[in-house]
Amino acid sequence: MASKSDNLTSVLYGIDDLRLEQRPIPVPKDDEVLLEMDCVGICGSDVHYLVNGRIGDFIVKKPMVIGHEGAGIVSKVGAKVKNLKVGDRVAIEPGYGCRVCEYCKGGTYNLCPDMIFCATPPYDGNLTRYFAHPADFCYKLPDHVTMEEGALLEPLSVGVHACRRAEVGLGSNVLILGAGPIGLVSLIVAKAMGAGKVLVSDLLQNRLDVAKELGADETLVFPKNTPETELVKLIHNRLGCAPDITIDCTGAEATARLAILSTKSGGVGVVVGMGAPEVKVPLINALSREVDIRCVFRYCNDYPFALSLVASGKTNVKRLITHHFNIQETAEAFNTTRHGLGGAIKVMIHVQPRDKNNPK
Amino acid sequence: MASKSDNLTSVLYGIDDLRLEQRPIPVPKDDEVLLEMDCVGICGSDVHYLVNGRIGDFIVKKPMVIGHEGAGIVSKVGAKVKNLKVGDRVAIEPGYGCRVCEYCKGGTYNLCPDMIFCATPPYDGNLTRYFAHPADFCYKLPDHVTMEEGALLEPLSVGVHACRRAEVGLGSNVLILGAGPIGLVSLIVAKAMGAGKVLVSDLLQNRLDVAKELGADETLVFPKNTPETELVKLIHNRLGCAPDITIDCTGAEATARLAILSTKSGGVGVVVGMGAPEVKVPLINALSREVDIRCVFRYCNDYPFALSLVASGKTNVKRLITHHFNIQETAEAFNTTRHGLGGAIKVMIHVQPRDKNNPK
Amino acid sequence: MASKSDNLTSVLYGIDDLRLEQRPIPVPKDDEVLLEMDCVGICGSDVHYLVNGRIGDFIVKKPMVIGHEGAGIVSKVGAKVKNLKVGDRVAIEPGYGCRVCEYCKGGTYNLCPDMIFCATPPYDGNLTRYFAHPADFCYKLPDHVTMEEGALLEPLSVGVHACRRAEVGLGSNVLILGAGPIGLVSLIVAKAMGAGKVLVSDLLQNRLDVAKELGADETLVFPKNTPETELVKLIHNRLGCAPDITIDCTGAEATARLAILSTKSGGVGVVVGMGAPEVKVPLINALSREVDIRCVFRYCNDYPFALSLVASGKTNVKRLITHHFNIQETAEAFNTTRHGLGGAIKVMIHVQPRDKNNPK
Amino acid sequence: MASKSDNLTSVLYGIDDLRLEQRPIPVPKDDEVLLEMDCVGICGSDVHYLVNGRIGDFIVKKPMVIGHEGAGIVSKVGAKVKNLKVGDRVAIEPGYGCRVCEYCKGGTYNLCPDMIFCATPPYDGNLTRYFAHPADFCYKLPDHVTMEEGALLEPLSVGVHACRRAEVGLGSNVLILGAGPIGLVSLIVAKAMGAGKVLVSDLLQNRLDVAKELGADETLVFPKNTPETELVKLIHNRLGCAPDITIDCTGAEATARLAILSTKSGGVGVVVGMGAPEVKVPLINALSREVDIRCVFRYCNDYPFALSLVASGKTNVKRLITHHFNIQETAEAFNTTRHGLGGAIKVMIHVQPRDKNNPK
Repeated sequence: MASKSDNLTSVLYGIDDLRLEQRPIPVPKDDEVLLEMDCVGICGSDVHYLVNGRIGDFIVKKPMVIGHEGAGIVSKVGAKVKNLKVGDRVAIEPGYGCRVCEYCKGGTYNLCPDMIFCATPPYDGNLTRYFAHPADFCYKLPDHVTMEEGALLEPLSVGVHACRRAEVGLGSNVLILGAGPIGLVSLIVAKAMGAGKVLVSDLLQNRLDVAKELGADETLVFPKNTPETELVKLIHNRLGCAPDITIDCTGAEATARLAILSTKSGGVGVVVGMGAPEVKVPLINALSREVDIRCVFRYCNDYPFALSLVASGKTNVKRLITHHFNIQETAEAFNTTRHGLGGAIKVMIHVQPRDKNNPK
Repeated sequence: MASKSDNLTSVLYGIDDLRLEQRPIPVPKDDEVLLEMDCVGICGSDVHYLVNGRIGDFIVKKPMVIGHEGAGIVSKVGAKVKNLKVGDRVAIEPGYGCRVCEYCKGGTYNLCPDMIFCATPPYDGNLTRYFAHPADFCYKLPDHVTMEEGALLEPLSVGVHACRRAEVGLGSNVLILGAGPIGLVSLIVAKAMGAGKVLVSDLLQNRLDVAKELGADETLVFPKNTPETELVKLIHNRLGCAPDITIDCTGAEATARLAILSTKSGGVGVVVGMGAPEVKVPLINALSREVDIRCVFRYCNDYPFALSLVASGKTNVKRLITHHFNIQETAEAFNTTRHGLGGAIKVMIHVQPRDKNNPK
Repeated sequence: MASKSDNLTSVLYGIDDLRLEQRPIPVPKDDEVLLEMDCVGICGSDVHYLVNGRIGDFIVKKPMVIGHEGAGIVSKVGAKVKNLKVGDRVAIEPGYGCRVCEYCKGGTYNLCPDMIFCATPPYDGNLTRYFAHPADFCYKLPDHVTMEEGALLEPLSVGVHACRRAEVGLGSNVLILGAGPIGLVSLIVAKAMGAGKVLVSDLLQNRLDVAKELGADETLVFPKNTPETELVKLIHNRLGCAPDITIDCTGAEATARLAILSTKSGGVGVVVGMGAPEVKVPLINALSREVDIRCVFRYCNDYPFALSLVASGKTNVKRLITHHFNIQETAEAFNTTRHGLGGAIKVMIHVQPRDKNNPK
Repeated sequence: MASKSDNLTSVLYGIDDLRLEQRPIPVPKDDEVLLEMDCVGICGSDVHYLVNGRIGDFIVKKPMVIGHEGAGIVSKVGAKVKNLKVGDRVAIEPGYGCRVCEYCKGGTYNLCPDMIFCATPPYDGNLTRYFAHPADFCYKLPDHVTMEEGALLEPLSVGVHACRRAEVGLGSNVLILGAGPIGLVSLIVAKAMGAGKVLVSDLLQNRLDVAKELGADETLVFPKNTPETELVKLIHNRLGCAPDITIDCTGAEATARLAILSTKSGGVGVVVGMGAPEVKVPLINALSREVDIRCVFRYCNDYPFALSLVASGKTNVKRLITHHFNIQETAEAFNTTRHGLGGAIKVMIHVQPRDKNNPK
């Protein structure tokens, strides 16, 4: 267990400059809890900051604690906190809004322009031993849910948000483009929401093998150098119909186009993956068939549903974790994610000894 | 197999007057198929007509073929039929609208005032050897789905319609009042749509045992002579929270009241079961907590989803069938349903020898 | 103008015990503004507390400042306030939630169980010279909107919430039951949202005359001792069809029943008015026609729309105000509302001299 | 009045080959009415077929009667028609579906793959003296609505469909890109649905003058050679905020981009205008702000709302008509539309003498 003065922290100083250092232990505000962090998953965006120092207009201008897919143990509670007590095991929803703007009051706080989000500059993340966070954005885990599963609620919530925005329902036939972590969580959630057939496509067979394990009805490796009209036919043949819903988890131009071209008239293409800033799309095709495009940015009021799903035991979200490191090995952990070493899907960094806080 | 001149038919002549008789084999219209019926389930409304000769304003004034939960084999196709061919095994959606009114064109044909619905006076049902029906209201069964399952799509579609109107979603906590066939199909569908916890309540433990088998997370036998405020507490304790959604499958005043009182603020009470024509409800309770009441009448565009669910193999809807009879035993079959003999839930009448048209 | 030490306040001490007294001027918190109140309308609920000392479980147990339909001038701003400055003329949304519960974060803060709402026990209202309130629940009025209009945003927001929940749209035919303030604001909003024909009914012709002035296409005085089936026919004849939407602004059993019986199949009955705690409703009628009942409790994210409507100049919401009093005449003002003296619809109490803060 | 043997008809034989010829008078089917056509407006798509012989995959391969924005008088009724009688003045909804597919039964018949639509190859239009059409797609005009207004329901319905898909509501701030007929009807409908501020932009001031007459709160001539970031600022300044909803009525790449870039986070860009088949869009901008793109293809269940709006007298849709011709002058009428002669917005062709069937 970490001593109360040890607050080892992974800090991004700039491109390819990730350091371990001691930071002061924060003092929780009245509405916050102090968390002794247990584990933190690495997300593609974390790696993107490491490699590029920025994502769009978000630029790392000063040292920033990395990490935003975390779970921890409540170690102190602020004066006004009612929902949690010391010792509670919690998943941390890493972003919260200003609470007073129209988005925060209207139920779409993910769009708050003053969002404070872990490891999105200029805000610090939670790959650290001690972290303070608003108590209402911490979700108590049931006794049978592990800390790793708690940390996985973050990517899972993206899948929940995508599938809710897509209005996946009973019998929906769904195409998921891309079998990385976001594609896989979208698959998990779509099946949990009663989707009919789900087809997952990717360029790599080994990712699709995981999709199959996680419940994909069909998978499809996109053949190279194939015209998109042929890809559309392949998709329809494999699925047995045009998908009602397509979830594009890559954000590449080619997949954004397929999200329109292959989706059924009156259907919905949901774009989750951030890829190319500009893409050329077949607008008249979408128009004449009323295929809508919906966009997904993070999540909003989705953590409770993600937790409900994990707690139900009906899905094996843990299957996403392929590698474990401790916080001292942060550099190696990032390298594993960055280069997809050893078939890496989700890499988990343990701030506490593994299984310390997990159910016996 | 029935000879082409045998069209044995179960006809309701009036109260407690159900007869077997030969009827002419119908000739399908251009948009119809002729079906060789395989099996037909008995619904509570069928029994209601037998016992009372009417349901509300629908009165049996002339002999009416009974039965509307059927499946059959296509034996002839009308000139304009494209979606089916001779030999197809199909589930029959028993009601269709005028196709020209605002309801039919607006996607809610179940509300068409000129609805033609099997075994709702003055229209004949399909407990007969040969039956003609519009081809677009017949759904081809995949090879692995049995005819009994096809017939069960009818009650299952009620559950689909109820859960879609209720907007059951990922993690919804649901209370189902009543564990008869409609309560059980609502349970099946709610779980398939990703509901969190589902609590089913009834007065009879043996029905709840079936609910448990079919996936209920919790069950509750309502204790007699208990004030409703106590029942609300019992429900909240058993479910661990107030339900987001309550589906009342009995239509009794007591359950309609619970659908309001026990549902969470901002939640939805759905009423499916037809019971008391007039009920006293706690309106201010509903108002001050914005608990809405939604009504469910049959189904509309729900058969494809019900079929998708059965075909997925993820649910065991067959568990509803407790008794099998052949068409010559119609009287006994009705008696079994009417009095709930032998723990009857769903009684299936076979027009063809059992398993004749089922997958090998 | 009020001196900075004068904080004359109308305080309800108990049944029929409304007193004027000096209170300390509040100090705004960081996220609050101090408002110099200009005017406050009287609502039926204010009168209800005066007459009965309670509404349901909300009981006046200690002296409570009355009033919640107010507008004022910003006289101090808390340290963190960004949206307002001293001198701003604002309408006050009188209730705000805890900001951390699922309702507050989910966009339905009106259902927050910890709601703080002016003049709902135990919270003080704003019929006082100086009042502190969260800045984000104060809406700056454009230069051409009067303070009285600002105060009227409160009842108008109820109409907005009712019509948004009812999903009034282009061409909706709407029945409004009751032509009191809530019926009239529902009428104003329904017409502004593009409703087709709106029929307003009441027992009193003089209220319907105002409805006619405010844009009702048809009005109907309910004849006494008429069976409800006859009333339904009268409604359909007068409107030329069954209403798509019925808004019951009285909450009486008779109108709640009509909201079901007269509404079109697939339509919506919205209940706004708090009346009888228990009502007997024709449930099977609603069921077999899928007429839903939606409940309206106050408003939520509706003030901006109400303000947009008033600012557009397209509606004459001021027509609701029939009487003006100054704060010293509070008792007389309440008496006027209570007994509907002089055809009272909305009575406005001026804390500042009339028109002091209105546009020139 | 046309003699019963005269069926003068405008037929498109190919590119730039529009001929007047006699055609046999059709015989209505059982569910159809025979219409004596009164007037037909010219749509941009009509001109497109004249100029290019095709729109996308719809190719004029054999002579096709032109025209689809029509109104007429019922001159015969089919055996099963109940909603109309001889002499009724009706607006004609020009397209109808197969009535049996999932789109037709699900309430989105505009997406029916077997749609029969006037003057979309291979189906004939209605710029002819006698025309047969399904009775349920003919809408009886009230006595005070003119035949020209009836014909204008066609483009108006596009505006209705666009605004309903956009969910324009009370106080919505709307940007409309393009002030041609579709931009103008979208403006009319948005204002009727309670929009707050509507800003209409175009390249031509004279079109914006008409927008101003029809209720635009603001107009903006796009300055040439201005970077899109500047255009976004101009839009926000003119509207006073970012639009909640943008309706792109041109379909050009530049406006499709603005529909994303200028729309508020969480807002909706609706694309109505068919323009460039392929457009480059700023996808990450849309993603990170959850700006959705919805597509509009014709209309569906919208005619009744369009008629309700015209019948209310609240809007001056006739202002769109700038030119009148008789059917013998079809060529000149098309030329006027094609080249925008004399500030042409909507050109109306009269098959009957003008005002013959209009209210006195």
